[in-house]
Parts: sequence; C-alpha cells; structure tokens
Amino acid sequence: MKLTELASLLNGEIFGNHDTEITGVSGIHEAKEGDITFIASKKYLKDIGNSRASCVIVKEAVADLNKTQLRVSNPHLAFAKLLERFYIKPIKPTGISRDAIVSDKAKIADDVSILPFSYIADGASIGKNTIIHPYVYIGENTFVGEKCILYPNVTVREGVKIGDRVIIHSGSVIGSDGFGYVFEDGKYHKIPQIGGIIIEDDVEIGSNVSVDRATTGNTIIGKGTKIDNLTQVAHNVKIGSNSIIVSQVGIAGSSEIGDYVTLGGQVGVADHTKIESGTMIGAKSGVMGHVTKGAYSGTFAIPHRDWLKAQAIFAKLPELNKRIRDLEEKINELERRNPE
Amino acid sequence: MKLTELASLLNGEIFGNHDTEITGVSGIHEAKEGDITFIASKKYLKDIGNSRASCVIVKEAVADLNKTQLRVSNPHLAFAKLLERFYIKPIKPTGISRDAIVSDKAKIADDVSILPFSYIADGASIGKNTIIHPYVYIGENTFVGEKCILYPNVTVREGVKIGDRVIIHSGSVIGSDGFGYVFEDGKYHKIPQIGGIIIEDDVEIGSNVSVDRATTGNTIIGKGTKIDNLTQVAHNVKIGSNSIIVSQVGIAGSSEIGDYVTLGGQVGVADHTKIESGTMIGAKSGVMGHVTKGAYSGTFAIPHRDWLKAQAIFAKLPELNKRIRDLEEKINELERRNPE
Amino acid sequence: MKLTELASLLNGEIFGNHDTEITGVSGIHEAKEGDITFIASKKYLKDIGNSRASCVIVKEAVADLNKTQLRVSNPHLAFAKLLERFYIKPIKPTGISRDAIVSDKAKIADDVSILPFSYIADGASIGKNTIIHPYVYIGENTFVGEKCILYPNVTVREGVKIGDRVIIHSGSVIGSDGFGYVFEDGKYHKIPQIGGIIIEDDVEIGSNVSVDRATTGNTIIGKGTKIDNLTQVAHNVKIGSNSIIVSQVGIAGSSEIGDYVTLGGQVGVADHTKIESGTMIGAKSGVMGHVTKGAYSGTFAIPHRDWLKAQAIFAKLPELNKRIRDLEEKINELERRNPE
Repeated sequence: MKLTELASLLNGEIFGNHDTEITGVSGIHEAKEGDITFIASKKYLKDIGNSRASCVIVKEAVADLNKTQLRVSNPHLAFAKLLERFYIKPIKPTGISRDAIVSDKAKIADDVSILPFSYIADGASIGKNTIIHPYVYIGENTFVGEKCILYPNVTVREGVKIGDRVIIHSGSVIGSDGFGYVFEDGKYHKIPQIGGIIIEDDVEIGSNVSVDRATTGNTIIGKGTKIDNLTQVAHNVKIGSNSIIVSQVGIAGSSEIGDYVTLGGQVGVADHTKIESGTMIGAKSGVMGHVTKGAYSGTFAIPHRDWLKAQAIFAKLPELNKRIRDLEEKINELERRNPE
Repeated sequence: MKLTELASLLNGEIFGNHDTEITGVSGIHEAKEGDITFIASKKYLKDIGNSRASCVIVKEAVADLNKTQLRVSNPHLAFAKLLERFYIKPIKPTGISRDAIVSDKAKIADDVSILPFSYIADGASIGKNTIIHPYVYIGENTFVGEKCILYPNVTVREGVKIGDRVIIHSGSVIGSDGFGYVFEDGKYHKIPQIGGIIIEDDVEIGSNVSVDRATTGNTIIGKGTKIDNLTQVAHNVKIGSNSIIVSQVGIAGSSEIGDYVTLGGQVGVADHTKIESGTMIGAKSGVMGHVTKGAYSGTFAIPHRDWLKAQAIFAKLPELNKRIRDLEEKINELERRNPE
Repeated sequence: MKLTELASLLNGEIFGNHDTEITGVSGIHEAKEGDITFIASKKYLKDIGNSRASCVIVKEAVADLNKTQLRVSNPHLAFAKLLERFYIKPIKPTGISRDAIVSDKAKIADDVSILPFSYIADGASIGKNTIIHPYVYIGENTFVGEKCILYPNVTVREGVKIGDRVIIHSGSVIGSDGFGYVFEDGKYHKIPQIGGIIIEDDVEIGSNVSVDRATTGNTIIGKGTKIDNLTQVAHNVKIGSNSIIVSQVGIAGSSEIGDYVTLGGQVGVADHTKIESGTMIGAKSGVMGHVTKGAYSGTFAIPHRDWLKAQAIFAKLPELNKRIRDLEEKINELERRNPE
C-alpha cells in the first residue's frame, strides 16, 4: 500500500519519502523493511535508528531522523488502525456446523458462525455475525448479541445476557455459582445462586476469567470495560463502563467499581467495597471500604504517593531500628549526666 | 405461596399480615412486590424501608417496621432454603446422550444425565443421579459418586476418586500433574506424578480451579470443604473438612490444612506448611511453617491484631523517620550543651 | 524387580539385603512393603523408621539403619527414574479418531494419537507420537512438534509454534489476545494482536495457564522452562531457558526473563521488566525495572536478606512507635532541665 494512501486514511502528514511502499505493520523491534511502525513517546526515539522499518508514525516530526515519518495526532491509535487494516480479515459467516448441537428451541440470527463441537441450549439466542467456536457452551435462555466472538472452550451458563461486539477468550467461565454458604450445625449449606449476569456492549474478557452469577439480581460488567486473563469477578459485583481490570485481579462479592477505574495486576478488592469512578489501584494492592477517587497502593491501600514514601522507608527499617537504639543509649547517658 | 406455609416450613413466627402471598425470593435491593427477603443483621435495618419486598425474614422482630416480618433462628439459612424451594428444579435424569462418548468398560449407574460431547474413559464409574455436562472429560478408572454435578468444560484426569454430592464448576482441572522436577546436568527432569486425588462428599469446587494429583499417594480435599474460583491446590496437599478456601488462593505442595480453616482471597501457603484446625488467614497473606490455631495476616503472617497495628504505623513511616531525625538533632544539641 | 537390577540401572550401591524384591515406588509416608522410597536430605532421616518401605535411596549410606539402602549420587533423580520405569507406559499411538475433526489441510505425522472431540484446523501440523486429547483445539497454521502431550480442554489458537516433548495441561490457553488498548474519545480501542507464540522444546505448562500472543512478533518461552498452574504470561513476554515459574505468577507485557530464573508463587512482574539469568524472586513479591542477578523479595522487591530483616521489624512497628514516643518525652524532660 502506498504511504500516501495511509496518510490520507489516518489524516496524517508525511515527512520524507512520499513514494514509500508499505507492506506490513510491526512493533519497532520486530519491523522489517517495508513495515510501518510507531513510537508512543520521545523515550523510544533512540530505538528508531536500529529499526528496519521503512516509516515511523510520530506525534511530532523529528528533525535529523534518517527515516520517513508520518505525523498523526495519536500514533498508538493510528498503529492499531493499521494493524486492523492490514491483518484483520472481514468476518465471513460459516453458518451452523452439522457437528454443532443447537437446540431447536434456540433463536439463531442470520450470518452466524457456529463451529463444530459447540453447544447451544434451549431458549438461547445468538445474534447476527456472532462467532461461536468449538467447545463453547451456551446455557439455557442465555442471550448473546451481534458481532460477538466466543473463543474455544468458553462456558456461558444459563440466564446470561451478553451485548454486542463482546469478545470472550478461551477458558473463561461466565455464570458459575457465586461462593455463598450459610454455616449451621457444623457445616456449610449452599445458598442457591439463582441470579444472572449482564455483560454490556464492547466488553472484552480475557482467557481463564471467572465471572460468577448473582445470588439474586445480576452481576454486571459495564459497556466498554476490559478484563484481563485469570481475573475473578464474584457474585453481585457491579463494574461500571470503560474500566480496565488487569490480569489476576480478584473482586469479591457485591463490590461496586465505577467508570474509568483501573485495577492493576493481582489487585484484591474485598467484598462490599465501593470504588469511585476514575480511581487507580496499583498492582498487588488490597482495597476495602469506600474508596474515593484517587490513586492508591498497598494492602490495605493508602494514597499511592504516601505508599511510595512508606515503602522506601520499609527497606530501611533495620537502620531505623538501630538509630532508635542509638538514641536510647545517648538519652540514658544524658540522663545519667543530668539527674533530676 | 402463602406466608403461613413458609412460616411452618421454616419454623418461623409471623409479625404483620398473615395473609401475605409470596411469589419470589430475592436480595433486599433487588426485591419486587411479592418477594420475601432477609436481613443478616441489624446493620441492614436501614435498607428495609427502601425495599419493595412484601416480607422480610429477621432474627428478632423489629418494632415500628412498616413491613411484614418472619422471625426465624437463622435468617440467612431460611433465605437459602427458600431460594432452593422456589427456584431449584428437581433433577430429571436425561440418560446417556448418543452424542457422548462413554467407554463400554465404564460403569454407569441408573438415572444419570450424561450430556452430549462428554467423554468417559475406560474403567470410569459414574454414580446415580450424577450430571455430566458437555466437554467434561472423565479419565480412566476415575470414580464419581452420586448426585454430583460436573459443569461444562471440567477435566477430571485418571485415577481420581470423587464422593457424593460434589459440585465442580466449569473450567476446573482435577488431576493435572504436580509441579515436580529434579535439577541435574543443567536442566530440570520431570518427576512422574503417579498419585491420585480424593475429593470427599459435599465438596464444592469453583470455576477454573487447579487440583494437582499427588506424586505418590493422594492429594485430599476433605468432606464439606468449599473452594472458590481460580484456586491452586498443589500435589500431595491435604485439606481437612468444612474448610473455606476463598478465590485465587495458592496452596503449595505437601501442605496440610486442618478442619474449619478459612483462607482469605489470594492467600499463599508455602510448601510443607501445616495449618491447624480453626485457623483464619486474612486475604492476601502468606503463611509458612507450622501455624497454630488463630487469626493471622501479612506476609509472612503474624497475628491478625498485631498486623492491623503494624499496618497502621506502616503508613506513618515517613513521619516516624522524621521524628527520629528530630530526636537526633535534639540529642546532638543536648550533648553539645552537656559535654562529658 | 530385583533390587540388584535397579542398582545397576541407577549405578548405585546396595547396603543391606541384596535379594530385596521391589514391587513399587513411593514417597516415604505412603510406602508399603515392597516399595522403594528415597530421602532428599538428612533432615528426613527420622521419617525412615516409620516408613514401611523395603529399601530407601540415599546419597550417603546411613549407619545403624534398620533398612536396606541404595546409595546413588542424586537420590531424587533416581526416584524420578524409578517412577518412570515402574509406572509410565510407553506411548501406543491410537491414530486419528473418527470422532475428531481434522482438517484435510492439516499435516498429521505418523504415530499420533488424536482422540475424539479434538479439533485441528486448516494448515495445522501435528508431529510424530504426539497425543491430542479430547476438547483440544489447534488453530490455523499452528505447529505442534513430536512427542508432545496436550491434555483435555487445552486451547492453542492460530499461528503458534510448539517444539518437541512439550506438555500442556488441561484448561491452558495458548494464544489468547494480548491485553492492548488505546484510549481515545473516552473509550478504549482494541489493538489487534496479530503476533504469535513460540514454545521451545521440553517446556511444560501447567493447568489453567494463559499465554497471550504478541501484538506483533512473538511471545517466547525458552527450552526446558517449566510453568506452574494458573500463571499469566502476557503479550511479547520472553522467558529464557530452564526457568521455573511457580503457580499463579503474573508476567506483564514485554517483560524479559533470563535463563535459570525462579519466580516464586504469586509473584508479579510489571511490564517491560528485565530479570537477569540466575535470579530468584521470593513468593508473592512484585518486581519492576531492571533486576540484576540475585535473590529478591517484597513489593517492590529488595534483596531477600534485607527484606527478611525489614519484615522482622515490621511486626515490631507498634513497639518502635512507642520507643520513639518515650524518647520524645525523655528529650522534652532533658530540655526542660537544660534550657539553652
């Protein structure tokens, strides 16, 4: 593809050779001749020299760079668009495989791809252009919207509602029972988990994620929220829209997470926690109670800056201890010299 | 259903309108008219006013409450029983699907439900009223008891023994090889993991849980123990009865967990740890060695109360550091004033 | 089997009854009469007395031990070899099941075992003596080498390269999309993940592991590296050879892990971290930046010995706080006595 075409597609400005021919899109380290790449910030300027890319997407044109540049307002977004343009094939619906099991009480829209060894139970509904891969289980009365992709080995139990353009990666389980028991007579009695799950439009769920159904009511994942691999979302959790939940996070029962929240990797959220919109929780932190908008780290989390300072001193605790001991000795000496 | 019927079923006492008709069971926030709900403690009294429920289950009758009340000894348990009564259908065995693969060397009891796309290997045994969902793999010589439910995409490898009324949620793996290697000549040699797993009656295992088979002997999960999603149970671990293992816990090899132990979310248990019965480990903590009965938190865990106090001071470490510096200056000044 | 045969097989020396007949191999606690067992170090000498084993493998012959001994240079390795000898059956290829779906555009070597309900897509390649279990999905153009075992419910997406003698346990997902988005106009836009994954020879991957494909280029797991259950390996991560990644570790995007690295259970590695070869990170720790060879613990990790010392004092923080308060009072008193 001609660079000039890409420039007009991305609303960008070319600095250098306008005749450059672009044959691929790649990260700066993996790029070959003919590839277009990008740098997210000036920090990576030094890497351009070693890259074999034929063109680099930048936010501001760089002087004295021995490489053709394409200036756009958001290089990372431009990169994403080019990857899509070059590598993502349009969906060609394959219909319903004869090796799938699809209930005749299920509603299947046109232009679906229902692959072999998938299973769609009574009363389930599959929207237009949705792809159901092998070993995907869709339970009774579960609704899946349009243009969704459910990768192999996904389980969606009964009574789940999934919006449009939702992606669920392999191994994830949507609708397992919430972890609820009552203790009586020396043992735990199961509380039936009869609620459902609502997953709104444009949500993406990574691989091996567990989302539990509500005890009653619904577990909710809001529009545009993205959840990374191996995350736990417990019963009756409500996550707002456009939040980012990084890998291996655990969110305990009935917690409420606002919009535009970021939870770092391996964060733990105690049950009945409320996290306000716009909050960021640092990796590995643990939070509970009512978390007002801000940035937090640690277990239990404190404001991130305070945590950084406290953590820096943590490493010096042996030294602090020694300084206190020294002070005690000096005080004793001074008291000896100055009796009451 | 008449409230009077429910009252006699639950051995409860009605305060208010005896003629109330109950049409559903729900949490206090989700309840609609006709629903019965419950409050676990007085803390939630304030929420009753806003609930649309027609009746609330309480432990002690509340004066001046504009709502019909049903008093029982354990409201949470009563709620669980009503959910079961209203929403859980009795098992109707569907037999062995023609689309399942069941070895003719397997023993299948009467009244099972073996659904399409399930696989039962030679020598396996499936008990009465057990349900085997699609994509469930039952390995050679594995024994599954009566009234078990194995949800879609569960893998149970060879030589596993599962008791009665065991529930295993989707994506869980019972019997993967333990993580055992010997280092020699610059590389790791696999130690064959030829042991088994014993899962006793009334155990429930969440989704995406990994339980490894023993090197030799058995990994054991005791009667009535409940394990939440995404938990790791390593080879040769022994868990007692009626313990609660919350989500994303990791229990390393050969550890022994007693009865009535609670491990909070994301807890890590080092290998060869022994945790006595009745112990509680706080979320995100790490434990090792011999843990005597008690409540612990932190990594490595210390008594929970001590941890709370230490953690409160952790946030003040920068302040402590400054106080020590101030003391040092003052001491220097005092020493100047008081030479030896 | 005669003990003398085992001795010659293992290049060991017998102390005690040369005529001992060995009928099984087992851990010291599970051993029955006729079994051979081992002790890894002198620490376990005390357990031999109670063991019913007929012979114990040792590194150095123990005087006054009422048990036949077999002395070898590496008892643990000898034990592993005997487990293999006694219990691991040679692979008997079963061919391609009629109940599997294998694309006629896939290349299938001789002597494979492709079991029922497995799925092999167009352009995929399966090497000699490899075993593909039920519910295993092999995506387009994915290459699997020789003598591999893919256990039930494994998903390997398109464009993945797997070497020889690789073992992947149930529920693991190789090739889910990396977690990459660009924020613009108030929402997250997906960055297509069009890269691949390279898994080199002799790698073993536990159950319910997630390995994400690269954005561009490849995620790489080096020769002989072993990864435990429920681990997260993000996009573009590169792990060297012969590293040990214990359960529930999370490795964020583009991080580089050297050779012979050990990451303890539940460790978190931030994105773009570089860990040098030979490094050990203690369980539950969090690391970021450039980690030079050494042993580290804590979040963020500091040298392990320093962490142990700091952690010991952490528990005494309330006491430290009190000691500082006492010092402040004493200083005040001394200042009163010694006005300027």
